[in-house]
Amino acid sequence: MRIRDLTGTRHEYVTHVDTVAVPQHQFPNDSLMERVDGRARGHVRQRHMRDVVADACAVLVVCLECVAYPALPVELVEQVRATLSVTFGMYSSYAGLVEGYAFAYRLYGPNLSYLSRVYPHDSHFSLHHLWSIYNGRVNTAGVSWTKNHCALANSKDGIGNRNSRHYKRARCLIQYDRWTTTPHHRLKSMNQTSSRLTPDEQTREDMRRARKGASVDVAAVRDYLYDGRQQWTEHTRVVEVMAKDPAFDKTRRPFMNRTEIYERSLAMTRRVYELEEQLQWSRAERQRAIGLIDDGSPLNLHDAAFEPLLDSQASPELLAQYGALIAHRGIIGCYMQTELAHGSNVAALETTATYLPDSQEFEIHSPTLTSAKWWNGALAKTATHGVVQAKLILGGKDLGPHLFFVQLRSLEDHTILPGIVIGDIGPKAMGAWGATDHGYARFDHYRIPRGNMLSKFAQVTQDGRYIRPPHAKISYGGMLYIRSTMVTSAGWVLAKAATASMRYATVRRQGGINTGGLENQIISYPSVQYRLLPILARAYVFIQLGRVLTRTFAFTSARLAAGDTSTLAETHATASGLKVFASTATARDLETARRSMGGHGFSAFAGLGALYAQYLPAAT
Amino acid sequence: MRIRDLTGTRHEYVTHVDTVAVPQHQFPNDSLMERVDGRARGHVRQRHMRDVVADACAVLVVCLECVAYPALPVELVEQVRATLSVTFGMYSSYAGLVEGYAFAYRLYGPNLSYLSRVYPHDSHFSLHHLWSIYNGRVNTAGVSWTKNHCALANSKDGIGNRNSRHYKRARCLIQYDRWTTTPHHRLKSMNQTSSRLTPDEQTREDMRRARKGASVDVAAVRDYLYDGRQQWTEHTRVVEVMAKDPAFDKTRRPFMNRTEIYERSLAMTRRVYELEEQLQWSRAERQRAIGLIDDGSPLNLHDAAFEPLLDSQASPELLAQYGALIAHRGIIGCYMQTELAHGSNVAALETTATYLPDSQEFEIHSPTLTSAKWWNGALAKTATHGVVQAKLILGGKDLGPHLFFVQLRSLEDHTILPGIVIGDIGPKAMGAWGATDHGYARFDHYRIPRGNMLSKFAQVTQDGRYIRPPHAKISYGGMLYIRSTMVTSAGWVLAKAATASMRYATVRRQGGINTGGLENQIISYPSVQYRLLPILARAYVFIQLGRVLTRTFAFTSARLAAGDTSTLAETHATASGLKVFASTATARDLETARRSMGGHGFSAFAGLGALYAQYLPAAT
Ligand SMILES: Cc1cc2nc3c(=O)[nH]c(=O)nc-3n(C[C@H](O)[C@H](O)[C@H](O)COP(=O)(O)OP(=O)(O)OC[C@H]3O[C@@H](n4cnc5c(N)ncnc54)[C@H](O)[C@@H]3O)c2cc1C
Ligand SMILES: Cc1cc2nc3c(=O)[nH]c(=O)nc-3n(C[C@H](O)[C@H](O)[C@H](O)COP(=O)(O)OP(=O)(O)OC[C@H]3O[C@@H](n4cnc5c(N)ncnc54)[C@H](O)[C@@H]3O)c2cc1C
Repeated sequence: MRIRDLTGTRHEYVTHVDTVAVPQHQFPNDSLMERVDGRARGHVRQRHMRDVVADACAVLVVCLECVAYPALPVELVEQVRATLSVTFGMYSSYAGLVEGYAFAYRLYGPNLSYLSRVYPHDSHFSLHHLWSIYNGRVNTAGVSWTKNHCALANSKDGIGNRNSRHYKRARCLIQYDRWTTTPHHRLKSMNQTSSRLTPDEQTREDMRRARKGASVDVAAVRDYLYDGRQQWTEHTRVVEVMAKDPAFDKTRRPFMNRTEIYERSLAMTRRVYELEEQLQWSRAERQRAIGLIDDGSPLNLHDAAFEPLLDSQASPELLAQYGALIAHRGIIGCYMQTELAHGSNVAALETTATYLPDSQEFEIHSPTLTSAKWWNGALAKTATHGVVQAKLILGGKDLGPHLFFVQLRSLEDHTILPGIVIGDIGPKAMGAWGATDHGYARFDHYRIPRGNMLSKFAQVTQDGRYIRPPHAKISYGGMLYIRSTMVTSAGWVLAKAATASMRYATVRRQGGINTGGLENQIISYPSVQYRLLPILARAYVFIQLGRVLTRTFAFTSARLAAGDTSTLAETHATASGLKVFASTATARDLETARRSMGGHGFSAFAGLGALYAQYLPAAT
Repeated sequence: MRIRDLTGTRHEYVTHVDTVAVPQHQFPNDSLMERVDGRARGHVRQRHMRDVVADACAVLVVCLECVAYPALPVELVEQVRATLSVTFGMYSSYAGLVEGYAFAYRLYGPNLSYLSRVYPHDSHFSLHHLWSIYNGRVNTAGVSWTKNHCALANSKDGIGNRNSRHYKRARCLIQYDRWTTTPHHRLKSMNQTSSRLTPDEQTREDMRRARKGASVDVAAVRDYLYDGRQQWTEHTRVVEVMAKDPAFDKTRRPFMNRTEIYERSLAMTRRVYELEEQLQWSRAERQRAIGLIDDGSPLNLHDAAFEPLLDSQASPELLAQYGALIAHRGIIGCYMQTELAHGSNVAALETTATYLPDSQEFEIHSPTLTSAKWWNGALAKTATHGVVQAKLILGGKDLGPHLFFVQLRSLEDHTILPGIVIGDIGPKAMGAWGATDHGYARFDHYRIPRGNMLSKFAQVTQDGRYIRPPHAKISYGGMLYIRSTMVTSAGWVLAKAATASMRYATVRRQGGINTGGLENQIISYPSVQYRLLPILARAYVFIQLGRVLTRTFAFTSARLAAGDTSTLAETHATASGLKVFASTATARDLETARRSMGGHGFSAFAGLGALYAQYLPAAT
């Protein structure tokens, strides 16, 4: 297949089952590049960045709408591409986006059935589910109130205590403890149905028909989305194991308190590692399993930040000492950058790491209340160690933020080490991120060995001299990588929302009676399609676009490691802009998908509310 | 002050302290009115309504942006008004909007200090609050984990039970019960501060200076917002009482489970009624107090739906029998319309009310699973009675949905009456609406007396003949009223978000060092202003616009009661469109305000996450 990219160049694509070739990224070498460069520099200057993103948004939105609606003439789509190529000629990565769209368009056509099959494990919401609840198969309401009632009776605080003023007041208002809820059962006389089929049967029939209606080669699309047949097979294998394992059961999740959510997530994480051993999973399979746990895990910080940071920036000696422990989670890490009063402005961090040549140690210190480390995931309860960002002080001179490997808790009994204060920062908005124990910490002249500075690039000699890194931006590679994976993962989050909402829209019938004597499936309304189809399209786009970016960034990182920063500016601007664009669009789309389900979308059982709340930090 | 409205007519406004006169609403009587009429009829046809709203949005957005930015020349603002008057000439209510904007603009100028004073009781988020937590003044982290830990130890289910497989797994992973959190205290050596002032002092100083900078007459603006000095005085009086009363304490709220939230809300509601008696509050004062409880209360349905419905549609006999009980909450009501499979499409409701002439009773019945009443607030636990929407069946003929007054629970012991099944539908998305017990219900040939049909308009005679209401739309008044109040309340919700986020932006310092040697207040960044100022502006607009609408709708309702439907179409279209516009904009703005606070906005303590989640149903 041949696709013209935004610069007008034609690329050859191979789209058969196992390979989806992506053209080598080429950096345009003309005057446009200067503009990009300027913009990349402007990144720190908020306004410039906003321009970049606003441009991108405007163009992409037009592009989205055009390609997502079959009714629009092909010429119009071509025109959008042309506009795109003028405005964003320099962002040749956007070619991936257009390509993704074009692809989504071709495979999508007027059908909406495919994605329903993608997530056997993760999206289970349907009327069927509500009916199950109602019929007591999943006895949610009962569980909720009985359990909460116990908790109430047992709790010792002012509100729950039966002798407390509050409680008495509440009891006075209505006689609370005499309240009853009828046990779940079907009353005998209530088995009529409103149509030829029972609701369960009708739901199955609606799904069956929708799936049968697909005009695309489902296997080919699936393999394309999964980046090859092999990945899909791996995914299926992992899903099958997890779907059967009670550790991953989700039925009680909406009723759990924060400790239970945290415990469950640790139990799931541990179970994944057990399965990895038992079933000889590869690292990729294990990560896939972790990725399927959609509540997050405090150990994610270990995998996603702590370990990669040490791998890329620790000295060979430090890695020799701790590498194996880290890899096998003998120690568990967190990333400690943000402080109570210092977030975006890393340069203003107050925590100090003062070198003491006599003992060859660094003294980590939090001089003020505002210097307390804050928001650090896995710090409050889980981590034994942290990578701490602190100002390096050498002979009274402030050399700015550097990274230090710091032990926080005893490996014997997990108690916090003397000289450190640690606590939990409290619950997060909308009940999200309950599984992660975000914490605060302060250090009181806390000493660590000289070797604990991450000194692959910058170093401090025994006698306290500073050795500069070969060039200033050498450690940027990791950040670029994380940004690029955020685009792909935004795509998968959207895919999940699109699946849940479209499946629901396929089985929910509401409004005018159609020829079959039933109400219309709500997916048949243009206003519902208007909300959901672009979401499906963006899911495809972000999955594919993120992949193109990841490859591009790998290329830039390799150059960077060799000291060549020539492609950094464009890559940085593209990564930052697209990360913002993808995450903002995704947060918005998640809400649109949830609202499209009407009242039932506002039930916790619909799942999309939690997905939105959990996704938010990516968009903040 | 003279303001030209959209039809070009000049109106005289009196804006001194006690009265803000609003011009009598006049219905334009020209060809534009036909267009409106068409649109109103088109309301049921989704597409038309979307057009109306889209138009409204487009115009309003331009209007917003123009008026909110002082940089724009007055001529441009005038031009917007002109456009508005051409496009929306027929919506003379929009005059209120422009007026609101113009006013907001004039009073706002380059300052942002006013609203900070409006909510002494309701918005308390600041860095100061975080610091308090850190210093153990509000011992949140401790409470959270200790309490949860107790709950865990006491709970009997599979996850919490210490002998369960899950629990053991969790314990294996890390030695959970040995985990420690350092008690909250300041370490001795950590009392340095990063500036001349302590953080607490700096926060106070920043707020003091921002407030002092106001160039407007704060008292006048305040009275304008509160619709007169008297209302403000009343508000202050109520707030003073509530702020001192421990029943309304919010400190433990983020740590409560659903039962506790529900109990607390009942306790607060009851306390308000106690205060009403003790302090001889007027009905307005009591409603003000209820309005200040921002978690909702299951009794809100009683006040906002049950009582008004009965007042406006019950027969004099029914009111004579139950009016006093309802007014004094001797019985507590809910509104039962939605069914599991029937939401928007009220015509398809399946619940039947069959008249039995022999016994002169109605038999309420839920023939199918899909006919189960669902989502009805206060049904699951609280209500003793409900107003049930059911198809009236007379001699085998289906006369469509009508309203019936139905007893659900015993007034002796609150048990559910035989022939009815009631339960809770489970938790809501993002932890919202925990205080309201949304329930489901099914009826098994459940009988009620003939007099329980709400028969002020339509009636059934003893021998089962149907008496039509004088005209079909006679009962629309209440709905219009509710829609109009939704615009005002959207404004107050926005005011709260604007207050919290602007106050935070005033005391949060992040980024480049300013002349004082401190980091900039983030409110000084154009990108932060770009996000927050339009929210402040919309708060003013919606508060004022809602008031204009409420008056207009009172006028239409009065006509309607007299059988005159001539103004219904326009009023209906305006109400529906503006309700959608205001609620959608408000939901979006709440998120924008939360995100503007960065990471700390994602803390549950910031309050805006809960505000958003709670507000969502208004926008769904
Ligand atoms: C769920 C979650 C998990 C986290 N996990 C970790 C972790 O594991 N480790 C860790 O170290 N940190 C973590 N953080 C903290 C995160 O890195 C910070 O929240 C982030 O850096 C933003 O900083 P801030 O919250 O202090 O916001 P601020 O920097 O205070 O920003 C507040 C507002 O001001 C604006 N602003 C700030 N500076 C400027 C400027 N110069 N120009 C214009 N506008 C400006 C921002 O855009 C924002 O709207 C986490 C945060 C969250 C929410
Ligand atoms: C917090 C909360 C409190 C509530 N309280 C009560 C209460 O006290 N009493 C009560 O009776 N009910 C209550 N409800 C229910 C509420 O009235 C319904 O949710 C609402 O009527 C929408 O119906 P639905 O949820 O069945 O959505 P549906 O009607 O199933 O709609 C689902 C989706 O399809 C779309 N759609 C439906 N029909 C059409 C059409 N003809 N054309 C185009 N699109 C269409 C909708 O826009 C929506 O996106 C409550 C709901 C919530 C969330």
